[in-house]
Amino acid sequence: MSIPLTLVLGGARSGKSRYAEGLVTAGPAPWVYVATAQAFDDEMVARIARHRADRADGWQTVEAPLDLAGALDAAPAGATVLVDCLTLWLTNLMLGEHGITAAIEALEAALDRRAAPVVLVANEVGLGIVPDNALARAFRDEAGRLNQRLAARAGRVLFLAAGLPLTLK
Amino acid sequence: MSIPLTLVLGGARSGKSRYAEGLVTAGPAPWVYVATAQAFDDEMVARIARHRADRADGWQTVEAPLDLAGALDAAPAGATVLVDCLTLWLTNLMLGEHGITAAIEALEAALDRRAAPVVLVANEVGLGIVPDNALARAFRDEAGRLNQRLAARAGRVLFLAAGLPLTLK
Amino acid sequence: MSIPLTLVLGGARSGKSRYAEGLVTAGPAPWVYVATAQAFDDEMVARIARHRADRADGWQTVEAPLDLAGALDAAPAGATVLVDCLTLWLTNLMLGEHGITAAIEALEAALDRRAAPVVLVANEVGLGIVPDNALARAFRDEAGRLNQRLAARAGRVLFLAAGLPLTLK
Repeated sequence: MSIPLTLVLGGARSGKSRYAEGLVTAGPAPWVYVATAQAFDDEMVARIARHRADRADGWQTVEAPLDLAGALDAAPAGATVLVDCLTLWLTNLMLGEHGITAAIEALEAALDRRAAPVVLVANEVGLGIVPDNALARAFRDEAGRLNQRLAARAGRVLFLAAGLPLTLK
Repeated sequence: MSIPLTLVLGGARSGKSRYAEGLVTAGPAPWVYVATAQAFDDEMVARIARHRADRADGWQTVEAPLDLAGALDAAPAGATVLVDCLTLWLTNLMLGEHGITAAIEALEAALDRRAAPVVLVANEVGLGIVPDNALARAFRDEAGRLNQRLAARAGRVLFLAAGLPLTLK
Repeated sequence: MSIPLTLVLGGARSGKSRYAEGLVTAGPAPWVYVATAQAFDDEMVARIARHRADRADGWQTVEAPLDLAGALDAAPAGATVLVDCLTLWLTNLMLGEHGITAAIEALEAALDRRAAPVVLVANEVGLGIVPDNALARAFRDEAGRLNQRLAARAGRVLFLAAGLPLTLK
């Protein structure tokens, strides 16, 4: 496995999406933006529109709330792919009662099939107090495990705070 | 813009205030402590009193729950100023329904007018799970954006955990 | 005080337990695992069983939900001790209305009595938004203070995210 895989971790509004975009656009186009966000409500519609407006020209945007593996396979062979973000994808899987383990394995297999760089964005959600409700606890456990698993595969892992990176790997 | 601006980020009880005080008192007096805390209730009164008792002698304390720019302008020209903290200031602005954008721009202009060092303390609040209520989500978005914006201007940015610093910049 | 004390900080599912176990098993046996978890409910029973199954052979496991000092004193003189974790221990103390200050002082005295390495695991819980309820706020304040206090004594302090360490000290 020699894929140049980068994982960009960070909290809400830590600048992780913008930083990840900068990593991608520092290399040659084409660039494919794989958005996992689903616009359930006005708040999400506004957030998605703001993110899209913030991106530079030259991006192809693909929406993949569930089938990340399919989106990676469908991207042009030489394109650099940015997945933003894994944590929303996990949310979508859990809310839809899709199988998480199979989906993660399919994602990993798709990552193995890519030769061009991939940048994954994920939220760190485990640094607050223990949530009151069991679903939130289960979610942060799954999110933490997913981050660990992809960090182990990645060649480069960054932790973003206030728009600035700390290098984990 | 050549101001020697430092931003100290960290979670609750991460030792960020004490660390920031150490940065200031490592340089020559006078030192001005700009407190943004408002004592709404007994818990806050106790917290403010504890912070004040923890500080070394030689500080001038100014309370500025809203008008940070005014407090910076009023500080003696050669004084090193510590602002503790930006996140409470943002809370005060939002609770009082003051304009956030104008207040931040006024703060940045006041920072530009200072020649002596300024140390800003801010909370990182975006590393837990997504809050249930919309106001809390809006707050952490604003807090994250404010941190990014001031981190971009600062010459030095530190992330504190357990009283120890990681250097972001 | 020349004890080789390590503190491993991190969020939920940050890989801190596994990383701490790796630090211990990189050195010679015997290894003593001091578990502070109490199995109140099925969720905790499952979590404890999963952690225990994940550990390599060669560990002696001791349960010490409250008397950490006693567990440290009872460990064989040359054994490396892993305490997992301080934050659950603090929870147990607070829920049981035990004196926190005296318990921490007893822990520190017991650490001073050990010549062999000790690795402490603790949660960072202060990086989300301010919790709604006063008990949660008091807890994260106590947890933060405990982390600061032990970080000051430790020779090595690590912050884990996604299974990877950042060196605080």
